[in-house]
Amino acid sequence: MRMRKVKWAVDYLTQSPHLVLEPQTLKGKWKDYLKVDSLHVEIGCGKGNYSLEMSNMYPDQGYVAIEKNESAAGMAVKKFDENEGNGHLALIQKDASDILSWFEIGEVDVIHLNFSDPWPKKRYAKRRLSSKSFLDQYKTILNKSGQIQMKTDNASLFEYSVLEFENNGFKMIEFSVDYRRETHNEDVLTEYEEKFVKKNQPIYRCVWEKI
Amino acid sequence: MRMRKVKWAVDYLTQSPHLVLEPQTLKGKWKDYLKVDSLHVEIGCGKGNYSLEMSNMYPDQGYVAIEKNESAAGMAVKKFDENEGNGHLALIQKDASDILSWFEIGEVDVIHLNFSDPWPKKRYAKRRLSSKSFLDQYKTILNKSGQIQMKTDNASLFEYSVLEFENNGFKMIEFSVDYRRETHNEDVLTEYEEKFVKKNQPIYRCVWEKI
Ligand SMILES: C[S@@+](CC[C@H](N)C(=O)[O-])C[C@H]1O[C@@H](n2cnc3c(N)ncnc32)[C@H](O)[C@@H]1O
Ligand SMILES: C[S@@+](CC[C@H](N)C(=O)[O-])C[C@H]1O[C@@H](n2cnc3c(N)ncnc32)[C@H](O)[C@@H]1O
Repeated sequence: MRMRKVKWAVDYLTQSPHLVLEPQTLKGKWKDYLKVDSLHVEIGCGKGNYSLEMSNMYPDQGYVAIEKNESAAGMAVKKFDENEGNGHLALIQKDASDILSWFEIGEVDVIHLNFSDPWPKKRYAKRRLSSKSFLDQYKTILNKSGQIQMKTDNASLFEYSVLEFENNGFKMIEFSVDYRRETHNEDVLTEYEEKFVKKNQPIYRCVWEKI
Repeated sequence: MRMRKVKWAVDYLTQSPHLVLEPQTLKGKWKDYLKVDSLHVEIGCGKGNYSLEMSNMYPDQGYVAIEKNESAAGMAVKKFDENEGNGHLALIQKDASDILSWFEIGEVDVIHLNFSDPWPKKRYAKRRLSSKSFLDQYKTILNKSGQIQMKTDNASLFEYSVLEFENNGFKMIEFSVDYRRETHNEDVLTEYEEKFVKKNQPIYRCVWEKI
């Protein structure tokens, strides 16, 4: 996503109590910090709807949203600050490639990848959030039976990801090539997802468990 | 597929030299019988186009097409008999649930499942050609690194199958949620596939290897 700079959001960002400026200081302590039983991490949260609504729906789950883009991150924390639900939330505005320095081994219960940037060119495959080097890092911070959930509209990214998980120590436990043909009240639509659902495009979804 | 009875095809069937009436007598001897290096089995071949064209394209591969429906089987062997290519082919007109009595342990190189009947009702799940009891039989007759290739238009059947393979000792090595968005000259369209491609429906495809 190449987003135009949104000045108010960038200005707002650093004032938000939901922004965690030094996530490494919370390594191993996120559940205490958020006062929750289980820890969910969303990588590339965009404007933050998904983490916000999921955390409101599941108040015993803490959501740490990661978003490198300043404008999107600013818009997300603004929503978090104005939230009237019971969600336990935080945001890290950094590139997820440093994720190992923010979470302890086995600290995370579920990782969410929603409509990740596809990086279609092969020479940029390493930037895909489902490429091997990312998967290896996720495996480290996930607990024993930790899960990764992925949703996307992008057929090529989905195909790539399914094989990448298959080859790197994950077991598929849920799989859908048209997730929204049935209702899933247990799950929330992301901003991107709403657009694709309106256009009647299929949503691909998978859940994997660490082997 | 509930097909109307096609009298000429049913009458023709038993006269065809491509029909193998007692497949158990060829157990362990199919490669010799077909004079080929590798053995492919298509289960539920319908009117037989796929096995016919694949065998012509790959004359060192033998194709054994299995089809329980008499009319479809009759139409298939008629085409096999009239074939002017170099294909090495045979047809078994029986229910595939007896497959263990026709092929020796490790005799088969590749199994093809094309547009298998979906049996959407849960109480008929055991009839699906990708259900556990079939997969266990396939594993027995496949050789060490034997493969199963599946194509379908049916999202629910595909989702079910992918998880069933995942849970029963197969490793996914190819995966596509829209196989025909790229050209695949190495592969042949089946009769059903042509209809779905014309309607612009996505073709789902997977290849698995025995673990
Ligand atoms: C296509 S948007 C999807 C946003 C949101 N998940 C949704 O579904 O509406 C992808 C987002 O991931 C962010 N992103 C991509 N790579 C990232 C990385 N390595 N670290 C943090 N954020 C990343 C982008 O900045 C962008 O906001
Ligand atoms: C939907 S048709 C597809 C035909 C063909 N593969 C194609 O793609 O055009 C499925 C075929 O599988 C056959 N079939 C289903 N279950 C079978 C079984 N247990 N043994 C043999 N054939 C079977 C049906 O009779 C039917 O002809």
